[in-house]
Formats: sequence, C-alpha cells, structure tokens
Amino acid sequence: MLIVPVISAVMRILILGGDGYLGWPTAMRFSDRGHDVTIVDNFARRRWHLDQSTDSLVPISSLQDRLDAWERVSGRRIEARVGCIEDGEFLDKVVADFLPEAVIHYGEQPSAPYSMRSRQTAVETQQTNVIGTLNLLFSMREHVPDAHLIKLGTMGEYGTPNIDIEEGYIEIEHNGRKDTLPFPKLPASLYHASKVHDSTNIHFASRVWGLRATDLNQGVVYGIETDETALDPALATRFDYDETFGTVLNRFCVQAVIGHPLTVYGAGGQTRGYLNIRDTLRCVELATLNPADRGEFRVFNQFTEQFTVSELAELVQRCAGEVGYQVAIESFPNPRVELESHYYNPKHQKLLDLGLEPHPLGEELVRSVLSTIERHRDRVIQRAITPRTKWNPGELEGGALSAAQKA
Amino acid sequence: MLIVPVISAVMRILILGGDGYLGWPTAMRFSDRGHDVTIVDNFARRRWHLDQSTDSLVPISSLQDRLDAWERVSGRRIEARVGCIEDGEFLDKVVADFLPEAVIHYGEQPSAPYSMRSRQTAVETQQTNVIGTLNLLFSMREHVPDAHLIKLGTMGEYGTPNIDIEEGYIEIEHNGRKDTLPFPKLPASLYHASKVHDSTNIHFASRVWGLRATDLNQGVVYGIETDETALDPALATRFDYDETFGTVLNRFCVQAVIGHPLTVYGAGGQTRGYLNIRDTLRCVELATLNPADRGEFRVFNQFTEQFTVSELAELVQRCAGEVGYQVAIESFPNPRVELESHYYNPKHQKLLDLGLEPHPLGEELVRSVLSTIERHRDRVIQRAITPRTKWNPGELEGGALSAAQKA
Repeated sequence: MLIVPVISAVMRILILGGDGYLGWPTAMRFSDRGHDVTIVDNFARRRWHLDQSTDSLVPISSLQDRLDAWERVSGRRIEARVGCIEDGEFLDKVVADFLPEAVIHYGEQPSAPYSMRSRQTAVETQQTNVIGTLNLLFSMREHVPDAHLIKLGTMGEYGTPNIDIEEGYIEIEHNGRKDTLPFPKLPASLYHASKVHDSTNIHFASRVWGLRATDLNQGVVYGIETDETALDPALATRFDYDETFGTVLNRFCVQAVIGHPLTVYGAGGQTRGYLNIRDTLRCVELATLNPADRGEFRVFNQFTEQFTVSELAELVQRCAGEVGYQVAIESFPNPRVELESHYYNPKHQKLLDLGLEPHPLGEELVRSVLSTIERHRDRVIQRAITPRTKWNPGELEGGALSAAQKA
Repeated sequence: MLIVPVISAVMRILILGGDGYLGWPTAMRFSDRGHDVTIVDNFARRRWHLDQSTDSLVPISSLQDRLDAWERVSGRRIEARVGCIEDGEFLDKVVADFLPEAVIHYGEQPSAPYSMRSRQTAVETQQTNVIGTLNLLFSMREHVPDAHLIKLGTMGEYGTPNIDIEEGYIEIEHNGRKDTLPFPKLPASLYHASKVHDSTNIHFASRVWGLRATDLNQGVVYGIETDETALDPALATRFDYDETFGTVLNRFCVQAVIGHPLTVYGAGGQTRGYLNIRDTLRCVELATLNPADRGEFRVFNQFTEQFTVSELAELVQRCAGEVGYQVAIESFPNPRVELESHYYNPKHQKLLDLGLEPHPLGEELVRSVLSTIERHRDRVIQRAITPRTKWNPGELEGGALSAAQKA
C-alpha cells in the first residue's frame, strides 16, 4: 500500500447501507485493514426485490450468515445494527453509541427507474434519501462534529451540460466579477434529484456547522468480485440485472447469456462514466484515509473511463461471441427522457491525485462476468429484463429536454 | 388595468396555503377579479404559533369567518379544502376534482429560524416542503398537465455570491464552450435549502414532463394592507413579529412601539431584496396572467428594492421618532451564520417587463405599520421578540462560511 495515512491507523467506521452491493464489500475491506466497522441496514434493497419478485443473480447470504462467514474467514467481527436512518432516534443512538470517526453513507434508494415509477416511489426515494441524510448530519453535529462524512453521490447529478463538468465547483466570471460556486446540476431522474438535494444539505452543514464531508459523485459501477468477496461464496455481493436495480453492463451480459438481443436505448450515444467495483472500494478508502478539513465540502468525480451505451453493447457482443454466444444489438424505444448524443467531458483527477490506480474495463472482466452468469443461468428471471418504467408515461407535449440542454 | 390577458378571462385557480399571510390576500385578489378560487390549507402556521405560545399581532378571523366575511363584502365565494399537501391522496383528489388552470403554491413551512431549531424541525421543514411540492407535480402531470404552476421560492436560495445574481439561469463560458445552466445556489438555512430542492424538482418536471412552471424567488415582504384586507377587519391578514415567523421590518416596528432597542444582527451590512405585500400580489397576478410555456421552468426574482439591515433600522428609528417613539439601535450577536458585509446585485427585471409598478418603501408605509401596532399594542408578547435560535448552536470549529463565499 502506498497510502500515508494522515489519521490514526485504526478508525471507528460506520457504514450506512452496509448490506448492499457496495456497502458489504466496503465493510469487509475496512475490516480486513483492521478498522473497527459497524454497519447499518434496513434491508430495503432485499425488500424492494421481494416486492417486484426479482432477486440477485448470484445467491447472497443473509446478513447474519455474512457476518459469521466473515468472522470465520478473517477472524474479524463486523457489528451490525438493523434499522432505518429515516428514523432519526434510531440513527442518533447508533452514532452516539459508536462515536464513528468516519461515516460512509451508501444508505439510499439507488435506482433511477424506481424513482420514476409512480408518485409513491418518487416520494419514497426523496424521503428516504433526503431525510436519512439530514438526520445523519444532525447526529454528526451533535455527537461527532470532527468525524468525516463520505457520501456516495452520482455523476447523474450533473446531467449532460454542454461544458466540461468540474469536480463539484466551477469558477464563474460574470460581468467582470468572479466567484467559485457549486457546479450547476441537471439531474437525470427524481432519484438523481434526491442526490442533488443531499449535496445541497451536506454543503450547508459543512459551511455552517463546520462538518467535514466528501461527496463521491460516482459513475456506473460494474463487476462483483473484490479481494474479499472472492474468499468464500458466503461473502458474495449481489448482482442485479433487472430493469430497476441492474446497470447497463450487467444487463447486457445477462442478455447475451440467455440469448436476448442487447437492448440499447434509442440512439445509444448516451455517454457516462464507469468504474470497476474494485476501484469503488479503493476510492472510498482513499477518501476515508485522507479526510476533508473542518468546514470543507469536498467533491470528487468517481469514475475511471467513459463509454457510450453502444460501445458497451459492442464490447459485450464481441466477448460473448468469443465464448460462443452470438447475440444481436437492438435499439429499444428509450424509456428515459435524455439526450442520446451529447458533449460529455467530466473531470476526474482528484482521486487519481490521491493515488487511485484504475482497473480499466476489458474483455477479461466481461468474460468473467459472463462466466459468473453461466453458473447461475437457471436463476435468470426473464420478465425482469425488459424496461417498463417510462420517464414521461403520458408522453406529454413539451416533455423534452429544455433548449438549454441541447448543444 | 393595463394587462392584456393571454388566457381565458376567468380561470380556476388553486391556492395552496390560502389561509396564510400572503395566501389569503392572494385568494381575495383573484376572487375579486372574478376568478374561480379554491384554497387549500392545513392551518400549519396557526398550529406552529400555538406550539410556541405566540400569535399574529393583528387579530385574524378563523378561515370559515374569513370566507363568510368575503362573501358578505364581495358577493363572491372562495371554496376551501382543509388538509395537508404532504398527504398525496388528499391533494390528488383536490386537483382531480377542481381541475385548476393555475396553481399558486404558498403551502410551505416558511421560516428559516424554525428550520434551524432542531433536527425535528429541520426534517419537518424539508419533508413538508419537498414532499408537498413533489405530490403536487405528480397530480398536475396526471390531471392537469397544461396547467401553470406558480411557486413561491425565495431570494435566499441564492445566498450572497460574489457575482451578479441572474434570474434563475446563467450563461457560463468555460474552456471555450458555453451553456445556459441553473444559477448556482448557496442557501442561507435548511428552510432555504428546501426551496432549492423544490426548484430542482420543478425544473425536472418541466424538462421531462413538459409542465409549465414559474418560480418566484421572492425577497422579504413587508406590510399587511391590500385593497381587499382593508375592506373589513374580518378580512385582515396576519402580522407576525416573533423571532420565528416575523421578518425584519415588522420586528423593528414592534420593537420601536414597545420601547425595545432595534436589534440589528451583527454588523448590519446584510443586504437583501424587499417588497411591499401589494407588489407580491401584483407579481403573482402578472405571472398567472402570463403563463409559462409547456416545458418551461421560468424564474423571476421578485423584489423591488434592496436594503441593508442597518438602513431599515435607521428608517424605522427616524419614522418612530417623528411620531414620538425614541428608540435606540443595538447590535445583537448574530444568531445566524452569514456574511455581514458582502457584494449583492441580484437582477429583477422580468416582472418589471411584465408591467410591475413597484410601491417603494417609504416613511408613509412605516408610519402606517407603526399605527397598526399601536392599535394592538396590548397584544405584543415581549418574550417572542428576542432571537434564540442559533444557526450553529455548538459554535463548532470551522463553522464559518467557506472561503468561496468570501468576496
């Protein structure tokens, strides 16, 4: 390890959403490094899957089995508290009891399609995300004002403006005067809007209360294997491929294995930032070991490469073909309201400066994902793959993106 | 009237928060002009006053008495629906039944100090405001996608950046490319942050669903008399002077009459936009009669003049002196975290372009407010005047405004 930690070698780390796709591998990573880790989860993701009769493609253990397996394999214990962070009394007690030095916050509803499904799911998304984070800010102010909040944001907060996207702030010269201000946001869904709200609230807490915070505006994560998940099947993290929680690379790989055409939405020129789950863990680790200053709200754009949707489809088609799956690419009517061809140049330098060494996306990774899917092919639920949630269900007149967004 | 209405002369207008300080006079104004007005209120403001044992200085009638008095005086009926807009089922039924052509949305928790008092009041503020507005957007999409939302925002969303504040959007040139993007926001409290969240959500609904919306980023309103409230004491609107709901000019006038020094927070150089309640009504009328286009999220900065806090204190001191109240001006330790001296140049041209003719703040208005207070002097609750809510109660280290905000 090349890191020179600037803080105590062993930290008390609280991970919200620690039973999730990224939360669980993150918990094991910090535990493995000797930190004192407590996770909080309310099993929201598992319940949302129950509600829609879908599941992770890779079987995952119950939280208790995971914790026990981790202790068996590593000799270390991760503590868990089950509850909702929307419940301010519950969260406050967790923070007051554990007195974390760092809080890593994955504990949110993370799906754009889920947030667009109905009034109820939109309200649930914004309430869960905004109120949970607000509760956390107050508990940190009250009990651990010197602790560092590492919050998972998303690149989707920015949208696709026609200028270079900076990391959180932009210097604006206007009518002969200058200021450095929050980078303007054009969130891509009501889920992404909830993350914009979080950013505004956390920035406020840093400016006014002096909290330390790092907002990690993450791109789309792919892959499921980390050093720790590979140690034992009972330590596996989830692999979602359904229209609600699955992301594009995962979905393409599943489609390839089951012989379903790769469904590119619209023109396929939508460009986004991507990163390997191994790089997510490293980014979170780098942010945690190099905390923000008191009163600082630091924003890192957390991705390593950018691709168009068509480029990903072509990569998966090629890799699948090499292992015997001939699969077509088909344009699917875009259920989202988004530009299908646009300028995109987001900066992502700050995590590299801290020491991130990216794992680029290559055929080896795709082949490994395809092979994982093959092993669990009998678990694929076909019904879950076709997107059904439309961003503008009534196809209302005028419901296009504003002129301001069209380059 | 100089307006050339571009829409049907008689409209169905839904006013959320129609029992409030601005909502009630707005309801009477549109009713007087012959529109079909329904108001929604849950009496939140009256309940918050009950909770803190304060009240409007001017006695106000119950909602039912107001409605009856208005019918007696004007011959016109305003309909009322009592309920919470956070209750999505309730609001959806109101919208589906009434099918408004315009929705004027005052139905939010409007106090910055209230939002900063505790975790509970912060959560209540963001939940009430954000979820209420989100419910409304879905109901409009479902039942009245062509209706026009006129939403009360606040100038406090912008904070005090070191550049000119534009009306909602700013053209940014960056690394040789250009785009027009939402003006960056630095909200001044968690209440102001809730309004930033609303703006983000409404902009999304316009971009993606094609809704028509106008965000009125309002300055601080003063005055209590409009053409309609003056018709009968039973039609009076509320006059708040307590630390939670009272705004600065009202509070200074009450302090002058009861012989309390005028409490200027800190250096007194805080500059804000102000407007007369008569101009609020006119601005809302102008926005309603000239609706936004489909898919347009229009932002107007709604104020007529700007003053420092010290300038207002001196104005009140002078006017009060002329009518026999000698009162001192005292610097009070600032309970807020804000710059006490800063650049401030917000644009406010768009409502002038639509025909607004401002009522500037003058001695006559102040003397009229002083005279109203004299009549109700026995109702002044002294305890309610001193500010007790601190923005940074622990005075945490680092809890100043970021360097980016310091000119």
